[in-house]
Amino acid sequence: MRFGLFGSAQARRGGPDVDSGVGFREFVDYNVEAESLGFVSTFLVEHHFTGLGQVSATLNLLTFIAARTTTLRLGTAVLVLPWHNPVLLAEQVATLDLLSRGRVDFGVGMGYRHKEFAGFCMPMEEAEARFHESLVVMLRAWTSDEPWSHHGKYWQFDEVVVEPPTHQKPHPPLWMGAGSRESIKTVAALGCNLLLDQYSTVEEIAERIAVFKTEIGRRGRPFDPMSVAVTRSINVLTTPAELQKAQENRIAAKRRIDRLTVRPDGQNARRVSSDETIAASALYGTPEAIAHKLETLRAGGAAYILVNCPGGAAGLRRFAHEVRPSFDDMGGPDMAPHTPQRSDRPGEAGSALVNPPA
Amino acid sequence: MRFGLFGSAQARRGGPDVDSGVGFREFVDYNVEAESLGFVSTFLVEHHFTGLGQVSATLNLLTFIAARTTTLRLGTAVLVLPWHNPVLLAEQVATLDLLSRGRVDFGVGMGYRHKEFAGFCMPMEEAEARFHESLVVMLRAWTSDEPWSHHGKYWQFDEVVVEPPTHQKPHPPLWMGAGSRESIKTVAALGCNLLLDQYSTVEEIAERIAVFKTEIGRRGRPFDPMSVAVTRSINVLTTPAELQKAQENRIAAKRRIDRLTVRPDGQNARRVSSDETIAASALYGTPEAIAHKLETLRAGGAAYILVNCPGGAAGLRRFAHEVRPSFDDMGGPDMAPHTPQRSDRPGEAGSALVNPPA
Repeated sequence: MRFGLFGSAQARRGGPDVDSGVGFREFVDYNVEAESLGFVSTFLVEHHFTGLGQVSATLNLLTFIAARTTTLRLGTAVLVLPWHNPVLLAEQVATLDLLSRGRVDFGVGMGYRHKEFAGFCMPMEEAEARFHESLVVMLRAWTSDEPWSHHGKYWQFDEVVVEPPTHQKPHPPLWMGAGSRESIKTVAALGCNLLLDQYSTVEEIAERIAVFKTEIGRRGRPFDPMSVAVTRSINVLTTPAELQKAQENRIAAKRRIDRLTVRPDGQNARRVSSDETIAASALYGTPEAIAHKLETLRAGGAAYILVNCPGGAAGLRRFAHEVRPSFDDMGGPDMAPHTPQRSDRPGEAGSALVNPPA
Repeated sequence: MRFGLFGSAQARRGGPDVDSGVGFREFVDYNVEAESLGFVSTFLVEHHFTGLGQVSATLNLLTFIAARTTTLRLGTAVLVLPWHNPVLLAEQVATLDLLSRGRVDFGVGMGYRHKEFAGFCMPMEEAEARFHESLVVMLRAWTSDEPWSHHGKYWQFDEVVVEPPTHQKPHPPLWMGAGSRESIKTVAALGCNLLLDQYSTVEEIAERIAVFKTEIGRRGRPFDPMSVAVTRSINVLTTPAELQKAQENRIAAKRRIDRLTVRPDGQNARRVSSDETIAASALYGTPEAIAHKLETLRAGGAAYILVNCPGGAAGLRRFAHEVRPSFDDMGGPDMAPHTPQRSDRPGEAGSALVNPPA
């Protein structure tokens, strides 16, 4: 197995005496240490207007981390395409990909929090159409050396050649989150790698990997176990009391996030997990207990785990030293990037992936 | 006098054998060396679709430079506000300001190249209105700790608190380019610092500084000589033949840029300089000749020069060692940032600057 990071730094607004940058700088140091501990990647969220101080300018923070690291792959999990001008975003991603010598893993999504769409005054109903249009534009921006135009529903560009180009060709690997069978099929059809969420059960993880593998096989492509990243919260704890407290914190944090996704009609845009699932999906406990859970994940086909450590750098070190060695199959600095797979899905984004302009 | 840099890195699109990142990485090294040579700032352009490989994702490149430097101020000259979602841009600037511990100098403009507006399918006639609306939104994003809404002509936001906050309070210093008396008055009224272009004559520079100083004085504010940055191209050359060649290159480069600004009616959006002015405005020649020109600029009130060196790192070193020592008044690492001045101009942007919400 290989291990990366996922999560967010925190920089809350505060009064004049608050140094809001501390959270960012600690997060940068955390990533630098993670690289030296053998973690192969970091995947960062994008969120807005939460009041929780989550990362909003994801690519900027990743760019700073890029300058302080040399092998760590730099991922987004995920950039919400509907909120961005796709050409400006393609330029930002390409700039980071060049500066980092090809370390970008570009995770994309449609967004799911009502509060964020409301803040941008954008109907959530447009999210999917905007996502697909933006993806088409970005792929074209990355792969076209000749002037092109786009006159879509949401975006228009005329006779542009987008600079700079990406380092990775034809473009950085794309990643998408998915849970349902249908959405996993879409990810496979679009030629993207698959991100699996941290609240799903081990059984669900195994089932989703199997579906993805089948879909990839159906398309005649070889299945790369590293093309599925499973996010997990990990916390090495010694006593039952510590475990109890950590699980309570985890459930409370999840409920805070749930509230940000609620629509005006009171429905939640995402399936709401039970307390039991939230607790069971976490890899919390003694090194032995965590190892047991990792074994089950590995048996279910999981080869690439992205960890979030509520215990911070100390927690990451403990996991790296006390648990990970039995599971390590780390590629280290020369780990090959996950090259994008071609799509065979009809439709705009698919076609763009199948036939990148020379 | 104090000295900074202005300019652009270059990363052209190219075939599979071209490492487009070389230009960016050399530019990063150039900035790192500039800091060690005592230059106090770097100001980067933003351009799109030029085919010249100019920097498009300006804040991302500056963020990488931020991670490799400690005192260098990180400027934009200029970010073109009409092309950006002002909330996303405010988040990006704030993230860089936090990560760099308050080193952002935020230069803003309305844009002037027809080809860029055409590429974004945005009428150039909207540039000024978009600029002012975006500035209002950004100032609000930076200075509001409580939820706010904006329902403007071009942008809508509902009940948002924008995170993260900036490091510099109430926000990073703003800079604007200006040439005419009227536009300089606007810069003073908006409480911005002043950027002066590299093609104006020494006489024009002196006149513009005088106008700005008067306008600042009329508003009862103290005039800070560091609030005016004069851009100049500098090239230490030994022989008349080298000088001749360098001037020809400079004129040809200016004509290339001119072509990008031409409107469909054949008119140029900016005043077109004569070959003589283009040549005369450059600080090219022997160390003595350059020193003489710098003397004239200093006599005209210029205290802060942003240099562009066609001679690259070698040229920068030569200037730093052979010319600059007679003019140095470098603040070094503890140079205070140019704190933003408050505005007394009625109008939206002005009001926002006068009355930043607590």
